[in-house]
Amino acid sequence: MVFAESLGLVAGALVTCSMIPQLTRVFKMKSAHEISILFTTLLLLGMLCWLVYGIYLELLPVILWNAIGAVLVTLLMYLKLKYGR
Amino acid sequence: MVFAESLGLVAGALVTCSMIPQLTRVFKMKSAHEISILFTTLLLLGMLCWLVYGIYLELLPVILWNAIGAVLVTLLMYLKLKYGR
Repeated sequence: MVFAESLGLVAGALVTCSMIPQLTRVFKMKSAHEISILFTTLLLLGMLCWLVYGIYLELLPVILWNAIGAVLVTLLMYLKLKYGR
Repeated sequence: MVFAESLGLVAGALVTCSMIPQLTRVFKMKSAHEISILFTTLLLLGMLCWLVYGIYLELLPVILWNAIGAVLVTLLMYLKLKYGR
């Protein structure tokens, strides 16, 4: 189980942290025309579902990564609304 | 467990399907300057880790959604390399 748990932690970290360079890029370019608002919406809803799933099954890594991920995706959605109109 | 399993299926579907409007947008605009290559790379690695995790623990929804997700992210990476230089 240690292998699986470690792999789950790494996988969640990679998926959540992938949002950081994307956020940075849109923020630096001050442009988000190529970002789909539906992408950010579905991704946010998905992460919120994973968050409820993690809380329900008491899976700390799932709670942790999806809580952070949801904040990052909300930020991307904000930048899309600000720079992508 | 039925509630949790259903929620996991919906969550995975939302996250994976979020890639479809993003792919469509980049493909239609024929431009991917705002997409971060590091975003697609980390996301792909994360999904591949989830895929191995799912295979190891024999979790069919995790295998299914991350296999499809990895294909979609690979496509986005291809479009980034084609249109984002």
